Amino acid sequence: MSAASDAQTIRCRAAICWAPNQAITVEEVEVDPPKAGEVRIKVLANGICHTDLHLYTGHTTGSEVKYEYPCILGHEATGIVESVGDGVTSVAVGDHVMSLFNGQCRECIYCKNPNTNLCLKRSFDEPRMSDGTARFRFNGKPVYHFLGISSLSEYTVISEIQVAKIDPKSRMDRACIFSCGFTTGYGSAVNVAKINSGSAVAVWGMGAVGLAAVYGACKAGANIIIGVDTNDSKITIAKQIGCTHFVNPLKCEEDGKSTVDVIKQITNGLGLDFALECVGHIKPIEDAIESIAPWGTVVAVGVYPGNKNLEISPNTFLTGKKLTGALFGGYKSRDCIPLLVDEYNRGEIDVEPFFTGNIKLEEVDDAFQKLLKVKALRTVVLF
Amino acid sequence: MSAASDAQTIRCRAAICWAPNQAITVEEVEVDPPKAGEVRIKVLANGICHTDLHLYTGHTTGSEVKYEYPCILGHEATGIVESVGDGVTSVAVGDHVMSLFNGQCRECIYCKNPNTNLCLKRSFDEPRMSDGTARFRFNGKPVYHFLGISSLSEYTVISEIQVAKIDPKSRMDRACIFSCGFTTGYGSAVNVAKINSGSAVAVWGMGAVGLAAVYGACKAGANIIIGVDTNDSKITIAKQIGCTHFVNPLKCEEDGKSTVDVIKQITNGLGLDFALECVGHIKPIEDAIESIAPWGTVVAVGVYPGNKNLEISPNTFLTGKKLTGALFGGYKSRDCIPLLVDEYNRGEIDVEPFFTGNIKLEEVDDAFQKLLKVKALRTVVLF
Repeated sequence: MSAASDAQTIRCRAAICWAPNQAITVEEVEVDPPKAGEVRIKVLANGICHTDLHLYTGHTTGSEVKYEYPCILGHEATGIVESVGDGVTSVAVGDHVMSLFNGQCRECIYCKNPNTNLCLKRSFDEPRMSDGTARFRFNGKPVYHFLGISSLSEYTVISEIQVAKIDPKSRMDRACIFSCGFTTGYGSAVNVAKINSGSAVAVWGMGAVGLAAVYGACKAGANIIIGVDTNDSKITIAKQIGCTHFVNPLKCEEDGKSTVDVIKQITNGLGLDFALECVGHIKPIEDAIESIAPWGTVVAVGVYPGNKNLEISPNTFLTGKKLTGALFGGYKSRDCIPLLVDEYNRGEIDVEPFFTGNIKLEEVDDAFQKLLKVKALRTVVLF
Repeated sequence: MSAASDAQTIRCRAAICWAPNQAITVEEVEVDPPKAGEVRIKVLANGICHTDLHLYTGHTTGSEVKYEYPCILGHEATGIVESVGDGVTSVAVGDHVMSLFNGQCRECIYCKNPNTNLCLKRSFDEPRMSDGTARFRFNGKPVYHFLGISSLSEYTVISEIQVAKIDPKSRMDRACIFSCGFTTGYGSAVNVAKINSGSAVAVWGMGAVGLAAVYGACKAGANIIIGVDTNDSKITIAKQIGCTHFVNPLKCEEDGKSTVDVIKQITNGLGLDFALECVGHIKPIEDAIESIAPWGTVVAVGVYPGNKNLEISPNTFLTGKKLTGALFGGYKSRDCIPLLVDEYNRGEIDVEPFFTGNIKLEEVDDAFQKLLKVKALRTVVLF
């Protein structure tokens, strides 16, 4: 009998999201053993990310996303492998690991293509495991998954392709932010936009993703870094992380100016070399496209409400403007993201300013409310 | 007295475009001497390009373009410098030259930026010279310029920044196509899209620009090259130049299929690596964006009617799709385009299939009618 088959159902505590706009409660759930190609993880730390809010508030992003309630949220996790299913080779029991919402099977035609970080093996918004069932039960009924991670639980089951081994000496309550938020913003700046030294950059949205993009712009040597946010309470953290300027579109309006005009003025009339839209609204991306120089690049990072479209003349692009976007910073997840954790471990990346406190699992609902009210950046649940 | 000031008014024949949808007639005009920074050219050959049709039919592309009638069309020219105005240093009397609709002053902040081929010194759609006047007169009244070139005249005056010296041994009736059409398509493929070996490409619009893009894709080693055009009469030339497939959107519709589905099928479900839209309509660019793989690039090359917009969800770009565009193949005109003529002279670029006949100046109106009826690719006026 293989070690894989020895694993038993575990009873543990998990935070259950019952329905949109309903309080999350902590309950005792059953967690099945990992099936073939799956890994069961004892979660050590989980960062609470804005993407979790989509299910918490029910503001999902369009028809392509198939969520099911009740479910267990959480997708920025570090932990220790408790057991592995058949055929798992890349991690072993006892390994320290991080979760990756965007998997990498390394076998599909996308994984073998150097130009994309998408993987065809598993859609990351699938609320069930590959066999069509859930690994969690509460009172005998299934509790569904979120982004294949569901790490707001003491134990969770994840597909092997969404797990990567990290140095066990890593600070687990810090490494977890590389599982989504930091990597998405930072990679969009340095890996997708490929911001270069001396350039002019603006980032829309001063949440964790946007601030990580600012951090990336700063590391890349950008000369002008404009943080754009409708909330002035973001000024301090924006400047702390590296913004040279802060523009509040609401204040611009009050002053009878457009955000675009103010950005053009800051950039001496030239416009931006790079614009990163980390909000997920149409107006910011319109402003971003208008604010860039004729050779500028806009990177769409935020996820947009499914029913809203950008209206634009293709002539806009004839000068050489570029519009692109990225998921997870454009990184092949298992190959690249543990290397960012290594950079963190070597002191080359500083994520400390992103953390606004640690909580216990019981405080998760409070933490979601704080995030909704823009009173927290990254709160970590310690297990 | 400098040589520049010696030049006298020349009387010569020119083809005058009187108003939209009115026959072009050949008349005797007066051509003023070149003013400071200008060059007067004895035109040797002029390719008739689709862009000339905008003024011939009155289908201009939006409010930003300020045309004036009567005017002299033509913007794909080769010739010999007849006289130069004060301060002209880059060409001299007797030099063989080509015209460049998009100038390069080499001094403005755009010219000094390696990321753009725009030049701030002179807007290329300006119907008058820099001092606000025209250099042509008919019966004492001004006749205006087109794209700063107006080479459907035995003599014309062009700003120095729109003229480049070429090897006098070049075939003048072939080199002229590098002044606009060929370069726009070819550069969009090899210089903007940067098509790579083994890739899958589609080009919308099998006119001279689109076919030059096909030629570029072919030279770059693309594996699949799909020509898309609603006119089946283009199949022969498309395949001659390098298309591996030809898709007629009207035929797709008749067969109950979408152009996108047919392209996806040709590319084994993966989609295109590169799509070049050389028509200037909304539906082709929508299809292009939908036909590319998640990592694919769309290059907008055609100029769109000013009042039509693309409607698109920014989420489309989250997979890494890219939308960009280019003017004049993205080349810094004076620096780069004579080098393409050199490549042609060395036999490394074959433009022969683009040429569908030579005519005399008197036959220009007929040639425009042929181009409108898609019965010609590149007709050259020989002087």
